[in-house]
Amino acid sequence: MCRFVIYKGTKPVQLSHLLTRPCHSIINQAFDSRLRLDRRRPINGDGFGVGWYDSVYDEELGSQPCIFTSVTPAWNNVNLVRLAEKIKSPMVFAHVRATTAGTLSLDNCHPWSYGKLMFMHNGGIAEFGKIKRKLIASLPDEIFNWVSGNTDSQWAFALLLSKLPNPEAKRFNPAVLQRAMQETIAHINALSEEYGITEPSLMNFCVTDGETVVATRYISSRTDEAASLWFSSGSTFSEYAEGGHYKMSKTDKRENIIMIASEPLTFEKADWMEIRTNHMVVITPKMNLLQIPIVDKFYVAASDPAASSRGTEFAAAKGFLSPRRDSVHAH
Amino acid sequence: MCRFVIYKGTKPVQLSHLLTRPCHSIINQAFDSRLRLDRRRPINGDGFGVGWYDSVYDEELGSQPCIFTSVTPAWNNVNLVRLAEKIKSPMVFAHVRATTAGTLSLDNCHPWSYGKLMFMHNGGIAEFGKIKRKLIASLPDEIFNWVSGNTDSQWAFALLLSKLPNPEAKRFNPAVLQRAMQETIAHINALSEEYGITEPSLMNFCVTDGETVVATRYISSRTDEAASLWFSSGSTFSEYAEGGHYKMSKTDKRENIIMIASEPLTFEKADWMEIRTNHMVVITPKMNLLQIPIVDKFYVAASDPAASSRGTEFAAAKGFLSPRRDSVHAH
Amino acid sequence: MCRFVIYKGTKPVQLSHLLTRPCHSIINQAFDSRLRLDRRRPINGDGFGVGWYDSVYDEELGSQPCIFTSVTPAWNNVNLVRLAEKIKSPMVFAHVRATTAGTLSLDNCHPWSYGKLMFMHNGGIAEFGKIKRKLIASLPDEIFNWVSGNTDSQWAFALLLSKLPNPEAKRFNPAVLQRAMQETIAHINALSEEYGITEPSLMNFCVTDGETVVATRYISSRTDEAASLWFSSGSTFSEYAEGGHYKMSKTDKRENIIMIASEPLTFEKADWMEIRTNHMVVITPKMNLLQIPIVDKFYVAASDPAASSRGTEFAAAKGFLSPRRDSVHAH
Amino acid sequence: MCRFVIYKGTKPVQLSHLLTRPCHSIINQAFDSRLRLDRRRPINGDGFGVGWYDSVYDEELGSQPCIFTSVTPAWNNVNLVRLAEKIKSPMVFAHVRATTAGTLSLDNCHPWSYGKLMFMHNGGIAEFGKIKRKLIASLPDEIFNWVSGNTDSQWAFALLLSKLPNPEAKRFNPAVLQRAMQETIAHINALSEEYGITEPSLMNFCVTDGETVVATRYISSRTDEAASLWFSSGSTFSEYAEGGHYKMSKTDKRENIIMIASEPLTFEKADWMEIRTNHMVVITPKMNLLQIPIVDKFYVAASDPAASSRGTEFAAAKGFLSPRRDSVHAH
Repeated sequence: MCRFVIYKGTKPVQLSHLLTRPCHSIINQAFDSRLRLDRRRPINGDGFGVGWYDSVYDEELGSQPCIFTSVTPAWNNVNLVRLAEKIKSPMVFAHVRATTAGTLSLDNCHPWSYGKLMFMHNGGIAEFGKIKRKLIASLPDEIFNWVSGNTDSQWAFALLLSKLPNPEAKRFNPAVLQRAMQETIAHINALSEEYGITEPSLMNFCVTDGETVVATRYISSRTDEAASLWFSSGSTFSEYAEGGHYKMSKTDKRENIIMIASEPLTFEKADWMEIRTNHMVVITPKMNLLQIPIVDKFYVAASDPAASSRGTEFAAAKGFLSPRRDSVHAH
Repeated sequence: MCRFVIYKGTKPVQLSHLLTRPCHSIINQAFDSRLRLDRRRPINGDGFGVGWYDSVYDEELGSQPCIFTSVTPAWNNVNLVRLAEKIKSPMVFAHVRATTAGTLSLDNCHPWSYGKLMFMHNGGIAEFGKIKRKLIASLPDEIFNWVSGNTDSQWAFALLLSKLPNPEAKRFNPAVLQRAMQETIAHINALSEEYGITEPSLMNFCVTDGETVVATRYISSRTDEAASLWFSSGSTFSEYAEGGHYKMSKTDKRENIIMIASEPLTFEKADWMEIRTNHMVVITPKMNLLQIPIVDKFYVAASDPAASSRGTEFAAAKGFLSPRRDSVHAH
Repeated sequence: MCRFVIYKGTKPVQLSHLLTRPCHSIINQAFDSRLRLDRRRPINGDGFGVGWYDSVYDEELGSQPCIFTSVTPAWNNVNLVRLAEKIKSPMVFAHVRATTAGTLSLDNCHPWSYGKLMFMHNGGIAEFGKIKRKLIASLPDEIFNWVSGNTDSQWAFALLLSKLPNPEAKRFNPAVLQRAMQETIAHINALSEEYGITEPSLMNFCVTDGETVVATRYISSRTDEAASLWFSSGSTFSEYAEGGHYKMSKTDKRENIIMIASEPLTFEKADWMEIRTNHMVVITPKMNLLQIPIVDKFYVAASDPAASSRGTEFAAAKGFLSPRRDSVHAH
Repeated sequence: MCRFVIYKGTKPVQLSHLLTRPCHSIINQAFDSRLRLDRRRPINGDGFGVGWYDSVYDEELGSQPCIFTSVTPAWNNVNLVRLAEKIKSPMVFAHVRATTAGTLSLDNCHPWSYGKLMFMHNGGIAEFGKIKRKLIASLPDEIFNWVSGNTDSQWAFALLLSKLPNPEAKRFNPAVLQRAMQETIAHINALSEEYGITEPSLMNFCVTDGETVVATRYISSRTDEAASLWFSSGSTFSEYAEGGHYKMSKTDKRENIIMIASEPLTFEKADWMEIRTNHMVVITPKMNLLQIPIVDKFYVAASDPAASSRGTEFAAAKGFLSPRRDSVHAH
């Protein structure tokens, strides 16, 4: 089971404020389960990755993101601590990995980048070994040979790349990324059906070109809840009390910051809104946040009573949790 | 906060039965907090080490132990998994480290060996930076220059080595190891007093020459409880149910196996006996287990009511716990 | 460009005598180019692996080999140094890797094992990206999903496994391993031809089940020389002068030791015999060594003048060298 | 034996132009000995470090340098490759380490930083174990406890810090850094003499506060040559031919770039000037370069015939070389 966080701001954030300093950052949660808001779920450090875009465009440096990955736990990585104090970015993906699939290797650490695009995943594709070969067969040579690791997640990114008219484009229309994401999920579902796989797949995917973010909270089931996904927005994200206690403030009307995370990253749960199961969120280049249903055979409309009775056991058994119904008990 | 386990048997154990297969091994506890018998304490994987002695003496191979250490988490170390399936030993030390002191480096992973001796520590020497230089000044050149890391634990081993008539001896009288251990603790206490350090030090130390084991459960306080330490003995340690459920059996009268661990490693808490605070346990070459009080100004006799009212908050705050009084609540 | 060595003996060798102590071991060659007998070739440390079989069969431990791999340079790996002092084996594969293909990852370190089999490769399959997908398509699911890395070498092993009637067998007839090896090479050649690849592939492959060894010196070219391969045999391999100077002695008539290596490992070049290009060597369980031509369209009979005019430039440009003709210049 | 390079420019350099792209960079030299201009010396990859200062001051980020270190070889470090493409700096230290002293550990990788200061070393202090304890005894507690590794080099930096009025100052007068450097060398020499050490120490030290650079080429001997040290200056450092062939150009009168390196980094040896043995070079904040003799009992004036007859065998035997006299033989 993994953790991730997405940051998009009108101003760059010093990475340390996102990663190393907050006591509830995904890194420190992994370090000490007492720091986690929901302590029932185990979390581990089988690899870490952070990817970011430059805050100022420099022609020599280009527009692709930079990625730092590690197979030693993030909480104890001196390079990460030092870099996080020196790097600012308006668009960050960060991911703590537990090796549910794939070996411990830099090749298997999220996020991955391809041209201007960056991708990460929280979840797992059920019985991936059964569909892997046919999925691979559908990829163009260049994308097939680009894959360096052995995780379902990196192959899912490869599949998404194959759905884009030009994966090496400099800019992507949000609609193009959305459609590619939807086709990726549909393609995986079709393969799973073809091979008679009945276990649901947990597909919380995120992709960005540095301007637009498309993230999904999805499960290929009508009766189970997807792995959790939350967002928060505000004008500043800062430390309000010593010891790494951060909060999102709304000091003015404008929303300068949007964060999406696998679980709330501050004590103020009120600051965090749950993303609905089998929906896609899009952060547009102009910082609008849209929530769009992924309508397929696993979709249950919010108006349908079944929507609120999805079971949380499956995700929990996989090490994830749907915090929806238990959020009322949060301190 | 760390975890350790000591195994001494009349027959060699395959390391996998101690380390990688039991669902409650110190490695798997670190991986998934749900597997831990006491879940309140966080545990992490900031390095791992295992040391063992050969099961059959081979002149070419010598009598020193072999040590395997790692800075990536043990639960995901393919080398450890493969080695543990292939190595058998009658005398094993294993240690999971959390970096309370010292950086993440192989030099800082327990256990360490020097000649035939092997040493590990669970705990921490209070304000070690204040006494480090004077402690160092008392060491012979050879031992001073042997230290490769920057932990209080390795310096404590160096100090213990300096208390031995010949640290490179091929065999040690149990009484010699006991005395050196006692002098090591006394020396550290004297330095702490000299520098006005009032915070207690947690000194659960273990040393062995491959035949004798001396382990302490000690705190330099009259009012606080030491970090926990348990032992179990029996004739076989084996899997009684699938999924890595192990237990210690007493199928015959003889005790072929003695294990000492920072916390019980099986669900059968009845199999585990707590070692008393500020005592030393000695496993003799002939598999007798002695429990000897460490009588100094921090000693409180068991008959003294104060002995049962030592507080558990200090050790707990440091990430350790004295499970004595709460053991009755265990499932 | 890589280095490897195979050891098979009637008595087990302490790994240190093969790996860490000899000044000309593949590890120390990698460390200091001045120690190499042929200094023109660069050599590096992008990963290391050693695999060995137990010297005494133990039912609990099974008959599969144990493998230790590392992505940090072998010459500086404290775990390797310590293990090599403590492990003895009658059948060892060791490999130093330079990342001509594949990323730096434990998954990509040779040797690999599957059941009782162990495999390694020195060379490279030309334009592997072009044939990879079709090669993959021919593998059974179980073998396809077993592959964890992204090197041509591991896929070649997977292909070889697919040529065996039962890759999980406990014992293999030497003829079965030979045939599988030959079919592997033929299959790769057929794919290369199908995709119009004209650059030769360097296929020095080694496989063993712990009893039989099959190693090839092969190039898919009639005009170029394969990467070098040598063997030496004798009754003892020991240090004759301080500083790690080893030699192979023939103190009695029997040949107790056979070594195969990518280049001579001792100063006495007379002790080393070159294996002919496009031949296979087989060490039988009874320690006979056979040299068998691989007769296909790239084979040139030794009687043919063309056999001695194969060019060495190709292998050299790839970082390998055919030392055949220059061996006369050796000191 | 190690390699280092210092870059100071009026404009920031993209780190890739210094580290990963030039075929003669210290990283690529380590990778392939054929790329080295002087191939007689072995070079290895036992750790790597690069430290840099921001190109634009940002109050939130502060003025301390950022450091990235690695124990896997630099040539194969994906994080380094990615960071080097994205980071620009006007003041860079980079170092490739061979473990002549100290274990393989991030703690032992150069450069180190303390406040605004950054330090690295190429060489070795003779019989450091003999003087280590007395050197340590002279350090203030804070600096003593700051040292995390076990190399002579990091202790030398600690000694230098102890010679500064305020090692945490925001700015240092060049004269202050020069004097501290001279006192550091004198202190080490005095200790060596006290302990009767006759073997010379190689002390090519570099320190910077981000504005001033002080570097020494020094040996504690009147008859031996120090390890080599070169500098080059110009207006642009750029690729003139594909394949990473870089040169220093002097397109205008101004000197915008000064580089100091343990060996020439381009084929144009004429671009590189040797720094004289037992001299100190200072790059001032305004980009002036001064060469100042270190006058002590090991100093031999250039006018003295003995100056040109220093032997190169000692440094060579240690893995270094004084290329002075052989530079005429260069290709």
